[in-house]
Amino acid sequence: MLVPYESLLSLVTGIFRDRGLPTERAAIAAAALCHGDLTGVTSHGTVNLTRLYLPLLDRGRIDPEADMHVRTDLGACVLADARRALGLWSASQAMELACARASRYGIGMVSLHGATHIGCAGHHAARAVAHGMIGLIASNCGGQRIAPPPGGTTPMLGTNPLALACPAGDAHPFLLDMSTTVVPTGRVRAAARAGRAIPPGWLAAEDGSPVTDATAFDRGEARLLWLGGEPETGAYKGFGLGLLVEILAALVPGAALGAVSSDGDSDDDIGVMALAIAPELLRTGFSEDATALFDAVRGWPAWDPGAPVAYPGWHEGERAARFRDHGVPIPAAIFEELRAASARVAG
Amino acid sequence: MLVPYESLLSLVTGIFRDRGLPTERAAIAAAALCHGDLTGVTSHGTVNLTRLYLPLLDRGRIDPEADMHVRTDLGACVLADARRALGLWSASQAMELACARASRYGIGMVSLHGATHIGCAGHHAARAVAHGMIGLIASNCGGQRIAPPPGGTTPMLGTNPLALACPAGDAHPFLLDMSTTVVPTGRVRAAARAGRAIPPGWLAAEDGSPVTDATAFDRGEARLLWLGGEPETGAYKGFGLGLLVEILAALVPGAALGAVSSDGDSDDDIGVMALAIAPELLRTGFSEDATALFDAVRGWPAWDPGAPVAYPGWHEGERAARFRDHGVPIPAAIFEELRAASARVAG
Repeated sequence: MLVPYESLLSLVTGIFRDRGLPTERAAIAAAALCHGDLTGVTSHGTVNLTRLYLPLLDRGRIDPEADMHVRTDLGACVLADARRALGLWSASQAMELACARASRYGIGMVSLHGATHIGCAGHHAARAVAHGMIGLIASNCGGQRIAPPPGGTTPMLGTNPLALACPAGDAHPFLLDMSTTVVPTGRVRAAARAGRAIPPGWLAAEDGSPVTDATAFDRGEARLLWLGGEPETGAYKGFGLGLLVEILAALVPGAALGAVSSDGDSDDDIGVMALAIAPELLRTGFSEDATALFDAVRGWPAWDPGAPVAYPGWHEGERAARFRDHGVPIPAAIFEELRAASARVAG
Repeated sequence: MLVPYESLLSLVTGIFRDRGLPTERAAIAAAALCHGDLTGVTSHGTVNLTRLYLPLLDRGRIDPEADMHVRTDLGACVLADARRALGLWSASQAMELACARASRYGIGMVSLHGATHIGCAGHHAARAVAHGMIGLIASNCGGQRIAPPPGGTTPMLGTNPLALACPAGDAHPFLLDMSTTVVPTGRVRAAARAGRAIPPGWLAAEDGSPVTDATAFDRGEARLLWLGGEPETGAYKGFGLGLLVEILAALVPGAALGAVSSDGDSDDDIGVMALAIAPELLRTGFSEDATALFDAVRGWPAWDPGAPVAYPGWHEGERAARFRDHGVPIPAAIFEELRAASARVAG
């Protein structure tokens, strides 16, 4: 079904507010969660409300009212304890603070430990674009272990997402939002729920042979591959990028680390890096050059004239514009879940 | 043959000095070039001296004496024109300046345009480790076009390397040094020179079928793939990472951009980002946590007890230690080239 964007936002905002989040915070978190549905990244949208965020709130593992506690402030750099606040909100707060610092120093970094699941990393990174800035978000998965290192028998790290947003003039912003594994677990589980086979190259069996049955992952019969796939096609780069995120997002602030975790199932104490760069403070002509770059990508000679070349974020921007005008596609079962969650608290 | 490391450094330093580089600068550039041979990344070592750097110096496209010209200085951030200085030197200079700024602000960024080829990005990133810092280097390839975007008919961007170095206590530092394509062109050309076939997944023909003949690349009969390979296994992530580097390294400072280049063969006006983070200024316990993280990776349960799990930089660190003690393997033909280059100028 198609749900008007403002109705969806307001429904989710109400659910978060009823669970104890202050109103403004609830609205920011709702926008972060609905970003998934709005851009077509449905694995990270409202489907996660009843599966991920509400149980964490109900069990007290997320504190709806906690404020960030700044531990070190060096001006261009802030290290803070997110104190188990809802990550959907605190990652956006971290990015806004990074932008404020970048507006004075050219660059700003906010490094969080004690965070909870942030949803789509790209949503938070994209906040920088509203300030004419470049935004980068890296987040680990706390102590959670999902993918094994190349040559290793057991999972070590999470899917460790990395996102970069950059203004593109009047066009949709550049927005890369990627797990450092071939795909995030959400896409494997969505295929498993739908009974769809997955392409070779996402999962592998112990002996390295491709697994196309998505349900094998949660049965522990297949490992999720790092970007690059096998060692000869770049698995060490994907694993290296996973560690890059672990270092920047979690080792820097002192958050939980997958490799030294005492509980490989827990995604408590997540680490987040929010970095903003203010290019217009550094030089003139940035905006014109960004427009020229992304226009050139869009106009690049394509094999199929019906499938023009695109940069990350372009298709998501098109979808968001369409869904804002005509309604956001939400499966009827998910919409019922949202209504039930809303009614339960209100009742 | 095995060449003592100090002899190799001194030979290359002499060649650069004889081409007009000040002595200290020549030594820094020589260390950057020999880093390739010292760590086993031979595609980026002394093999490039007569093929890449000396011709650029001889044609005046590299200025051996140019000093960096600072255009904007915001304290934590510096934007500078590298003025065609030898990239092997200026990338190291940029990283040292970034570290100096990070020692005051917690983070430091130096953004260069007008740079020339920097060699192994990882060598420059690793300079941060000597200061107890995390170093990141991103570099585009100027206006040079090497790999086409997914769905595009002609090359758009360079192989756009990205490197991150991080202290690991007493162990070899973490050092990820990667092109954002599956492999850099140097590895394809090394296979072509040696007459070796390459694995499927590096090159593809127009119709997407794998090409294992390395010589097809320079004949223009095969395209280099982005990390991730094909679209269903993450090609858009690899291409997105290539654009991430293009944005951070070149769009920020206003260097040449592959997609809007007027000469897709030229690697003049390269952009470089050097970023340093000083974690010990942000919190206590960083060094202990880094030791614990990288020890845990090294001790991870492995399928093959003879092939322990490693992090990027570990094997390179082992090789460098061995080669410093016992000599650096240099093919006799390359050593002859170095001797001839040295004699020609001295004579």
